[in-house]
Amino acid sequence: MDRSDIRQLLEDLKAGRTDIDTAVDLLSGMPYEELGYAKIDHHRAARQGFPEVVYCQGKTPEQVQQIVSRLFARHDRILATRADARTFAAVQEVLPEARYHKLARAITFSKDPLEPMYPGYVAILTGGTSDLPVAEEAAVTLAIMGHAVERVYDVGVAGIQRLLAQQGIINGAHVVIAVAGMEGALPSVVAGLTDRPVIAVPTSTGYGANFAGLAPLLAMLNSCASGVSVVNIDNGFGAGYMAATINRLIASGGSR
Amino acid sequence: MDRSDIRQLLEDLKAGRTDIDTAVDLLSGMPYEELGYAKIDHHRAARQGFPEVVYCQGKTPEQVQQIVSRLFARHDRILATRADARTFAAVQEVLPEARYHKLARAITFSKDPLEPMYPGYVAILTGGTSDLPVAEEAAVTLAIMGHAVERVYDVGVAGIQRLLAQQGIINGAHVVIAVAGMEGALPSVVAGLTDRPVIAVPTSTGYGANFAGLAPLLAMLNSCASGVSVVNIDNGFGAGYMAATINRLIASGGSR
Amino acid sequence: MDRSDIRQLLEDLKAGRTDIDTAVDLLSGMPYEELGYAKIDHHRAARQGFPEVVYCQGKTPEQVQQIVSRLFARHDRILATRADARTFAAVQEVLPEARYHKLARAITFSKDPLEPMYPGYVAILTGGTSDLPVAEEAAVTLAIMGHAVERVYDVGVAGIQRLLAQQGIINGAHVVIAVAGMEGALPSVVAGLTDRPVIAVPTSTGYGANFAGLAPLLAMLNSCASGVSVVNIDNGFGAGYMAATINRLIASGGSR
Amino acid sequence: MDRSDIRQLLEDLKAGRTDIDTAVDLLSGMPYEELGYAKIDHHRAARQGFPEVVYCQGKTPEQVQQIVSRLFARHDRILATRADARTFAAVQEVLPEARYHKLARAITFSKDPLEPMYPGYVAILTGGTSDLPVAEEAAVTLAIMGHAVERVYDVGVAGIQRLLAQQGIINGAHVVIAVAGMEGALPSVVAGLTDRPVIAVPTSTGYGANFAGLAPLLAMLNSCASGVSVVNIDNGFGAGYMAATINRLIASGGSR
Amino acid sequence: MDRSDIRQLLEDLKAGRTDIDTAVDLLSGMPYEELGYAKIDHHRAARQGFPEVVYCQGKTPEQVQQIVSRLFARHDRILATRADARTFAAVQEVLPEARYHKLARAITFSKDPLEPMYPGYVAILTGGTSDLPVAEEAAVTLAIMGHAVERVYDVGVAGIQRLLAQQGIINGAHVVIAVAGMEGALPSVVAGLTDRPVIAVPTSTGYGANFAGLAPLLAMLNSCASGVSVVNIDNGFGAGYMAATINRLIASGGSR
Amino acid sequence: MDRSDIRQLLEDLKAGRTDIDTAVDLLSGMPYEELGYAKIDHHRAARQGFPEVVYCQGKTPEQVQQIVSRLFARHDRILATRADARTFAAVQEVLPEARYHKLARAITFSKDPLEPMYPGYVAILTGGTSDLPVAEEAAVTLAIMGHAVERVYDVGVAGIQRLLAQQGIINGAHVVIAVAGMEGALPSVVAGLTDRPVIAVPTSTGYGANFAGLAPLLAMLNSCASGVSVVNIDNGFGAGYMAATINRLIASGGSR
Amino acid sequence: MDRSDIRQLLEDLKAGRTDIDTAVDLLSGMPYEELGYAKIDHHRAARQGFPEVVYCQGKTPEQVQQIVSRLFARHDRILATRADARTFAAVQEVLPEARYHKLARAITFSKDPLEPMYPGYVAILTGGTSDLPVAEEAAVTLAIMGHAVERVYDVGVAGIQRLLAQQGIINGAHVVIAVAGMEGALPSVVAGLTDRPVIAVPTSTGYGANFAGLAPLLAMLNSCASGVSVVNIDNGFGAGYMAATINRLIASGGSR
Amino acid sequence: MDRSDIRQLLEDLKAGRTDIDTAVDLLSGMPYEELGYAKIDHHRAARQGFPEVVYCQGKTPEQVQQIVSRLFARHDRILATRADARTFAAVQEVLPEARYHKLARAITFSKDPLEPMYPGYVAILTGGTSDLPVAEEAAVTLAIMGHAVERVYDVGVAGIQRLLAQQGIINGAHVVIAVAGMEGALPSVVAGLTDRPVIAVPTSTGYGANFAGLAPLLAMLNSCASGVSVVNIDNGFGAGYMAATINRLIASGGSR
Repeated sequence: MDRSDIRQLLEDLKAGRTDIDTAVDLLSGMPYEELGYAKIDHHRAARQGFPEVVYCQGKTPEQVQQIVSRLFARHDRILATRADARTFAAVQEVLPEARYHKLARAITFSKDPLEPMYPGYVAILTGGTSDLPVAEEAAVTLAIMGHAVERVYDVGVAGIQRLLAQQGIINGAHVVIAVAGMEGALPSVVAGLTDRPVIAVPTSTGYGANFAGLAPLLAMLNSCASGVSVVNIDNGFGAGYMAATINRLIASGGSR
Repeated sequence: MDRSDIRQLLEDLKAGRTDIDTAVDLLSGMPYEELGYAKIDHHRAARQGFPEVVYCQGKTPEQVQQIVSRLFARHDRILATRADARTFAAVQEVLPEARYHKLARAITFSKDPLEPMYPGYVAILTGGTSDLPVAEEAAVTLAIMGHAVERVYDVGVAGIQRLLAQQGIINGAHVVIAVAGMEGALPSVVAGLTDRPVIAVPTSTGYGANFAGLAPLLAMLNSCASGVSVVNIDNGFGAGYMAATINRLIASGGSR
Repeated sequence: MDRSDIRQLLEDLKAGRTDIDTAVDLLSGMPYEELGYAKIDHHRAARQGFPEVVYCQGKTPEQVQQIVSRLFARHDRILATRADARTFAAVQEVLPEARYHKLARAITFSKDPLEPMYPGYVAILTGGTSDLPVAEEAAVTLAIMGHAVERVYDVGVAGIQRLLAQQGIINGAHVVIAVAGMEGALPSVVAGLTDRPVIAVPTSTGYGANFAGLAPLLAMLNSCASGVSVVNIDNGFGAGYMAATINRLIASGGSR
Repeated sequence: MDRSDIRQLLEDLKAGRTDIDTAVDLLSGMPYEELGYAKIDHHRAARQGFPEVVYCQGKTPEQVQQIVSRLFARHDRILATRADARTFAAVQEVLPEARYHKLARAITFSKDPLEPMYPGYVAILTGGTSDLPVAEEAAVTLAIMGHAVERVYDVGVAGIQRLLAQQGIINGAHVVIAVAGMEGALPSVVAGLTDRPVIAVPTSTGYGANFAGLAPLLAMLNSCASGVSVVNIDNGFGAGYMAATINRLIASGGSR
Repeated sequence: MDRSDIRQLLEDLKAGRTDIDTAVDLLSGMPYEELGYAKIDHHRAARQGFPEVVYCQGKTPEQVQQIVSRLFARHDRILATRADARTFAAVQEVLPEARYHKLARAITFSKDPLEPMYPGYVAILTGGTSDLPVAEEAAVTLAIMGHAVERVYDVGVAGIQRLLAQQGIINGAHVVIAVAGMEGALPSVVAGLTDRPVIAVPTSTGYGANFAGLAPLLAMLNSCASGVSVVNIDNGFGAGYMAATINRLIASGGSR
Repeated sequence: MDRSDIRQLLEDLKAGRTDIDTAVDLLSGMPYEELGYAKIDHHRAARQGFPEVVYCQGKTPEQVQQIVSRLFARHDRILATRADARTFAAVQEVLPEARYHKLARAITFSKDPLEPMYPGYVAILTGGTSDLPVAEEAAVTLAIMGHAVERVYDVGVAGIQRLLAQQGIINGAHVVIAVAGMEGALPSVVAGLTDRPVIAVPTSTGYGANFAGLAPLLAMLNSCASGVSVVNIDNGFGAGYMAATINRLIASGGSR
Repeated sequence: MDRSDIRQLLEDLKAGRTDIDTAVDLLSGMPYEELGYAKIDHHRAARQGFPEVVYCQGKTPEQVQQIVSRLFARHDRILATRADARTFAAVQEVLPEARYHKLARAITFSKDPLEPMYPGYVAILTGGTSDLPVAEEAAVTLAIMGHAVERVYDVGVAGIQRLLAQQGIINGAHVVIAVAGMEGALPSVVAGLTDRPVIAVPTSTGYGANFAGLAPLLAMLNSCASGVSVVNIDNGFGAGYMAATINRLIASGGSR
Repeated sequence: MDRSDIRQLLEDLKAGRTDIDTAVDLLSGMPYEELGYAKIDHHRAARQGFPEVVYCQGKTPEQVQQIVSRLFARHDRILATRADARTFAAVQEVLPEARYHKLARAITFSKDPLEPMYPGYVAILTGGTSDLPVAEEAAVTLAIMGHAVERVYDVGVAGIQRLLAQQGIINGAHVVIAVAGMEGALPSVVAGLTDRPVIAVPTSTGYGANFAGLAPLLAMLNSCASGVSVVNIDNGFGAGYMAATINRLIASGGSR
């Protein structure tokens, strides 16, 4: 809401085209719901195109249950990440149609059948099999947000022919997510092969001096290839969300 | 080049629709030019939509001069980053029309006038005045690649009304680049206000425990907002390139 | 006790206005009680306005039990932090009126009903729900020390309207405690909105490169806003104690 | 500006008690001045009690000169930190009465004579002589903001009698700033001796494993004493500002 | 496959000396087998002299079981590292002749009796008894790859006569692997005594500031002796594989 | 064994004053006993004044049992550190007189009653109660090596009068061991009060940014007081051994 | 010198086949020359196949001059690394035939013409042009030690066709050295393409979070490919020496 | 000064055996001299056996000059460390007999000829020539404090025979100082050879991953040998002072 919006609103108010309560609502910020331990940002769906996502770590199952209930009252699609089985059980009590994605540790709910709503697809690559939980978190995020996904798993750079053979799928994607642990070289090689934006996700997979994902994180930040940006270690959700943001823009041609 | 491309090429060869020399060129990889100390990847323009960018740090002025000459022979636009005045002087000898962007430490050359080639614009925000060199490197990169830029400088979160007043420009952009040093909070706040993809760039600006940009880098990777991805510390070029990659896709609707 | 105090005391002694035992007590330092594994600093209440606080981590339940007993003999209010259920059980045996604050992992005891003893209140803000244990440790600390608290939870910067809507509560406070994990941006934004001192508490909440609270710690130390100082990661007690120290001074107008 | 302020303003507008331009100004955020490379937050004086402070590092002398000119047009007191001699020369051209504090690397200007405006004083302690530049930055900050200062320099814990002899000055202060490099033990010992809030400032003074201030920073964050909070390494300004914030509150009894 | 190989292949194809399917196979990369969650690189045996090694960490027992089955179908020797007892149980179901090396946490299988296939031996030294699991992982790797091993355990530098007494065995080896935790001094001393290449393996054995192997890792990288290179912390497999690679070359005189 | 010792030995040999076997033994290094997984350095008692100490971490109970048996065959006193209850049970089977020090996690055995064998005592100070396990490891080490110990526990610098009151004990000691976690300030303050050598031991006790002992370790290394040296985090044994080494020298006046 | 060598020597002595002085020399260690500030290890040539290499950093030009003079008196080939122009000037005074390799910062001297003495060659690869100084240090080291070198520069993974086109040279080498900064992915990709041992050298080339070579160092240690070991950051000498050690063994078939 | 000392003093006072001024002096702490920017601790000579040492880094030449003047007025021996040539020039103006030790960067002054005042000697070992400045700082410190020194330089572990040949000197010392950069292995090997206390000093000498001395620091803290303690990186003064403290105790048999 910038200066000209405000002027318009105030002129509407003065001219009687709108009333004080509406103006107060508009001016005092966007709506949210107070739960004491949390403030649900219901306006986010309008502002960012998808309702607030529930990050379950550090919340009790009861808190997640209540937040999901409130989201369900206003939104058609729900995503909860980093959820364990106990949390899912609590959610199921209030939302029996919710689905648990064990590998991705995510809970999803959709009132409609989950069909892609946007053209194109996002390619998700992993360096190895151990990167699958992170890759699947990205995939689940993309699916609930309405985007198609192609999985290209275990194409680490130690056997580069496996990766080169997938160039068709990679170049056909709108966005590429490259998930890798160990030395984190995958995004650099991929970005050198394509003109698609590459979202790099370091994982905490690996031996000793991996330091819980620090090694691939630094490698990805220092990529010698252009067209790469990086999200947090193991943050499949963040990569999926970023890819969805870009793909929605491609579909809309840049308009909101 | 995937399996079906190769089959097609070989069938063309067998059928006499192409000759061996062409096939060897296509199959043995994409063309590059050997300079001994460097191998210029001329194919990159075709593969990624822009010629190889010259990273000047660690190269002598003479090496940069020679590389730029060779690029000039085949390409219409040239970008060289991290260039000091001595390097620019060497480049000017062989390419008098080259332009030096002092703040951004970049050299550009374009055979045509530099008009935006793609619809929309990229908004570049900085937290403070000290972040300008990094922001300008991003701006120069975007301009030479054919994208329009809106600069929104010095909107750090300590005076948040300055940022809120720019929401119109931010939401009107196709992509947002948020450059910040110190605590690196800008991208989180911005991403919470918009549905545009936010490329975060940490800078090495700041007091003691900034540790040369480590503080804002970690902050940006840990952003509580969705739709943020991060490039290396002070890497304005990387952010500009990533934004250009996305904006080109928006323009093309996702096709190559 | 400085040079002139000592001269005065010695002149009193020589003049017979005080006796040797009193002087020895005063000069040989302040009283403490020897338990072998611990030396209880009973003088701290006089010196710092509140009895020694028991930090339970690294102590056996039996040790905590004994220390609490000794404190109870001389003081009206007791605080023990980082206490688990087993430790509380041991304390309850000797002090049945003690109260356990599960979320804050703290034990409190007060001979009188717990009414605020000082005007004003301390506002405690959190970025998210996962920060509640740390925030509650601060709240319990403030309460037992006689200060009123207002809780403003889950106002992270990704939905900044939630925070802006609380400006009244924030500016009405004497001191603000801002607790946040992830990128730790909350204190910077808050300090930019108010002229109250802001005590920042980083928490170990977050994904991968949070590095157990290092990311928000560095962010808070590098805050671009003025009027912020920082305590240790997850140190809700330290923040509460610091806020109490300041609020007591405000009440007394700076006199001891 | 919270919900009730907004309602009041709108009712004033509707009732004709205020006009649209005033309301737009009030609602569209607080005033700032656009310089392109910077946005001067003139509202900060009202919001936080002191005009925006100019952090000179990363700004050209010309930029600082221009910013200071604009601040001078609206405010009575100006502070610029991390200024070198060249920057001061540029400032002097437009503001000949400005004063340069060489040790503190700070520039100050005050229309009135610099008398303390608040009761009480802030005690600034250092562990050694090398900590003086940081301590003086704090002292200059406090003076320009209207607070009295007592300097207690070179009272490191290796000769603890020097510190103990200063207990009178320490306990007489409203706030204590403890500046130390090396092992950073000073704030812990001081906080154990007093009930005043202690602002700890680590400095980058020291041998090898000091790691540019990391050693005392960690030490201060881990202080075993209560009533300590920490600012960034070498951040004398931040400590001075925080102390001023607290002391102003003490003077006002907590009211704005 | 370089340019001249490709030309030869294409001339063969054109001349009818080979057919399209063979050429497609050769050109589209080397063979691998798709399992969805993994792509087994069967070509690796030809390319690197030993089939793909299964790294079990991060894989389910079922996944390892299936991968081992597929490897068994095409290769004579199999190695799986970082395997726990549950994984071995799953492997045994499909490959009862597989053997579990408990200390080394490795599974091996060989169709033929395990005799050394290459002359010479690799000496494996450890600084202490706690380094044995890592040393044994190296030993198992070497054995399954056909190399003889001499174990020289517990020769840490604090009792250097124990090491000096083993100079005969050390100088008789083709390659030396030196495994050490704590201060990681063993490889430096050993490399100073011999002209054999020394592969250094830091282990995560040790007290506090060992930081999970960082201390010996840094020590080994900084070795003042020449002829030392380093693998990852606890990476016995990597050291064994590197030693095998060198010893195979010695046996072949450098030819493939 | 230096050049003149060797010449003497060889002249003895040539002159028939010693025989070849004795000379070989002397020259080929000092005796040790081979167990395959370990080489017991029996000569250490002669070389360093106390038999090899068994570090139990990373060894199986069976290995410790066997090593202790062999030590028992040749030495009068045995020390095993970092031993858990299972390891002690194994040791007890073969050495029923062994004693387990639970807090110190150490096993000791002595054929004679444990009386101090050297004049003077070592003072062991701790900052808090949580440091006791480390302090006790030092105490047990000193006792088995024949030195007297005075314990001065819980004298952290936050209540400095507790420490000042112990100056008599501290200055009466031959050597001082100062054990502290958190900010690790204790050794600096102590070394400023005494002319005794101070061995500083950082512990992993503490809140968040303690980073498992890194904070006090760095603090102690950067001590502003002279006469301090540091051992590894939690290394009570190392501190005790160093103190014993010094105290034995004091007793002997420097002769071996 | 092991037990049997000593027995043999002593029997020779007793039997009069050798005299006491010779035996003392042999037994008291290997010869070195005392310069006060340095002890030249002349025996190293015999022990390790090449004379002691002079590391110039931290030595004065005069010290290097004197050490080189002494080496010249006994050896045919000399190598001094990390030498600046002033040091070379000092060396030239005493050894006019010495040669300075500016890019590699190395001084070499050889009495004979520098012809390869061993079959095969070592391939040295770099990721970019900035890695050349490190690569050249390796090349100079190999040349003076008698090995042939093939340079393959600027084959970073962002344009992987440049690397794939060099497979012939890579697979023809006896040993491969892969030098890379930034994300350090080169060794992983190379090791996946060949069965030659790969020595990885991280360089301090790169943007912000490279942290002076830490990023590629960690990446290389965590390589997902087998057959890689790592030397210190920028340690071209170490890589060259290790490669020479391996190639000499290949030439000798493993005998000394 | 403990409780009984104070009682005694007060009884003396009451009984007229001492006067108030004396008592005030004794009780108000030990004497120091106030210079504003510094407080000279003149009592330190009595308390610790040597006057306060001047650490010049971070002090202006004028400050050092003034401090040295004041020390000269009361003490016979003066030591100033980390002094550059300008500082020495300033000192010479007021104290022409002062001596500058260039390599050690130290200034010393002694009224008497510098003869060792204590029996025995301290052996100072270095790993290489680059460690000499640190070693010489230790040597100068020991000399001015009255202790004899034996230098054993360049005995790094890569040529271990050089070290073994010095065993006589090492075992004849009262205390051993081992100075080393790179991998910092020297103290471990030395401590394994002797029963003397070993003070380890890491230096910032070395290649890349040395990280300014972090590598040898961690190595020395993790030493597998007993009887080692560590001082800060490059802290030759600290090592010398610690060794002097121990050697003075050996001379006195432990009495003050």
